[in-house]
Amino acid sequence: MAAWAERLAGVRGVLLDISGVLYDSGAGGGTAIAGSVEAVARLKQSPLKVRFCTNESQKTRRELVGLLQRLGFDISEEEVTAPAPATCQILKERGLRPHLLIHEGVRSEFDDIDMSNPNCVVIADAGEGFSYKNMNRAFQVLMELENPVLISLGKGRYYKETSGLMLDVGGYMKALEYACGIEAEVVGKPSPEFFKSALRAIGVEAHQAIMIGDDIVGDVGGAQQCGMRALQVRTGKFRPSDEHHPEVKADGYVDNLAEAVDLLLQHMDK
Amino acid sequence: MAAWAERLAGVRGVLLDISGVLYDSGAGGGTAIAGSVEAVARLKQSPLKVRFCTNESQKTRRELVGLLQRLGFDISEEEVTAPAPATCQILKERGLRPHLLIHEGVRSEFDDIDMSNPNCVVIADAGEGFSYKNMNRAFQVLMELENPVLISLGKGRYYKETSGLMLDVGGYMKALEYACGIEAEVVGKPSPEFFKSALRAIGVEAHQAIMIGDDIVGDVGGAQQCGMRALQVRTGKFRPSDEHHPEVKADGYVDNLAEAVDLLLQHMDK
Repeated sequence: MAAWAERLAGVRGVLLDISGVLYDSGAGGGTAIAGSVEAVARLKQSPLKVRFCTNESQKTRRELVGLLQRLGFDISEEEVTAPAPATCQILKERGLRPHLLIHEGVRSEFDDIDMSNPNCVVIADAGEGFSYKNMNRAFQVLMELENPVLISLGKGRYYKETSGLMLDVGGYMKALEYACGIEAEVVGKPSPEFFKSALRAIGVEAHQAIMIGDDIVGDVGGAQQCGMRALQVRTGKFRPSDEHHPEVKADGYVDNLAEAVDLLLQHMDK
Repeated sequence: MAAWAERLAGVRGVLLDISGVLYDSGAGGGTAIAGSVEAVARLKQSPLKVRFCTNESQKTRRELVGLLQRLGFDISEEEVTAPAPATCQILKERGLRPHLLIHEGVRSEFDDIDMSNPNCVVIADAGEGFSYKNMNRAFQVLMELENPVLISLGKGRYYKETSGLMLDVGGYMKALEYACGIEAEVVGKPSPEFFKSALRAIGVEAHQAIMIGDDIVGDVGGAQQCGMRALQVRTGKFRPSDEHHPEVKADGYVDNLAEAVDLLLQHMDK
C-alpha cells in the first residue's frame, strides 16, 4: 500500500465525481470506466456514506442517473448533488430572472423559473450551444444591466469525452467576465458551498470525508480547501502533469476508482 | 477650450484608431462617423504626421482601406498598421506554423505562411467563426503541444457595430488561456511593440505623439503606457463610465474625431 494511504484513516464519507471517474461521456451516452461499476457497488455495501457530487450541466439529474443506471451503476437521483437544482434555488431566493446560456438537455430543470425581463445570466456547459451568436446575446444582456450578475454552473477548464478533450464552461465564463469587466458567481465545484451541501446530505463533517475526482483543481483542490481529503484518479481528464501541479497536491493518486475503493476498504478493515 | 487642451503642446504625430473613430462597422460595410471624413482630410493637410493604427482583423488591410475609401476617407494601405501583417512577420521570424482561428475575410493575409503540422495557434476576431467546434479544435491543438504558443491579434473586450456591441477576440483569448493554463502573446494594441512600430513608420517619438481612439484600455491606456498622450472619443464603443475608469484616465475626452482635430489644429496655430 502506498505510504500516503495512512491518510485514509477516519474516513466516514466519500464524495464521488461522476464524469471521468464513473464513466467517460461521449457518443451513444458514453462508457463505464473499467472497474467503476463494481467499485461503486462495493462502496455502497460498506459502512461508508456515499454521495455523488458532479458539475454535469448538459443533462438533467434524471437523465444522468438514467444513463448511469443503464451502464450498470447503482445510483439514484436523490444521491446526486448537481449545480442546476442548486442554481434554481439561488435564483428563487434572490428574485433573479435568468437569461440562460445552457445546453438544451438541461433546460427542463429551469421549467418553473421566471425568465421574463432578465436581470442576470446563467451560463453552463452549453457545448455546441456556445455559438458566437449565443455568447454575444449573453454579453449584451449583461452589458445592459446596471448591476450585472453572472452565475456559472461550475468553472471547469475541460473534460474528456471518448473522442478527446472538450472545452468546459470555465473558459466561456472567463470570456464573459473579461468582456463585461465583472466576476461570475460559481455554483458547483470548486465552490465551498457546493461541497458543503453535498456533505450535509450525508451528515458527514469535512474532516471525515474524502473526495475522489479526476480534476486536480475543481475536485481535489476545491475539496481540500473545504477541509476534506481528496484523491485524484488517473482516468477521465487526468494528465500526468497533474501530479506536479504548481498549486494543488492530492492526498493520493490512484489508477482508477477501483483502486481508490480497494484502499479505502482495506484501510477500514484495519 | 477645455483646460486639458494645454496638454496638446508639442504634438507632431497622430495615431488614429479606425473602427469607432472613423466609422462604425456593420451591415453593408458600415457608416462613416459624422465629421470624420473631413477631420482626416484636415489632419492630412496639416503638418502633423498621421498613421492609422487598428486592431481590425476581420478584413485584410486592402479590404479595410477599400471600404474606407468608398466611405470618402483619404487613406491608403501603406498608412495602416494592422495586426495580421505584423503577425505574419513574427511567424516567419520564429519558425511558427499556425493553426488559424480567424475570420475568413482575413485568411488571405496568411497565404504565404506554412500551416503544416501546426506548432502554435493564432486567434483573431473570428466573429461567427467562434463556434464551439472551432474553439475546441484550437484548444485541442494547444493541449497537444509541449510548449503551447497562442498569439492573439489584439485583446479587445468588445466593439460596436451599427447593430450593437459585439464580443471581440479578447474574451476568446481569455477562454483559451484559462482552459490551457497558458498566457497569450498579443499582437496589436495595447502591445507596446505594436504602437512603437506605428510610430517608427512616421518617424515620430512617443512623447511627440497622440493616440485618438474609442477604447479606454486598448487605445488610451496602451498608448499612455508607451509614453504617448491619448484622447478618447465619445463615439464607437465609448460608454459614459469610461470617463471614470478605475485605472485609465485619458489626457482628454472629445465628442468625436472632428472635435479632436479642431483642438489639435487650434493648438498648433498658437
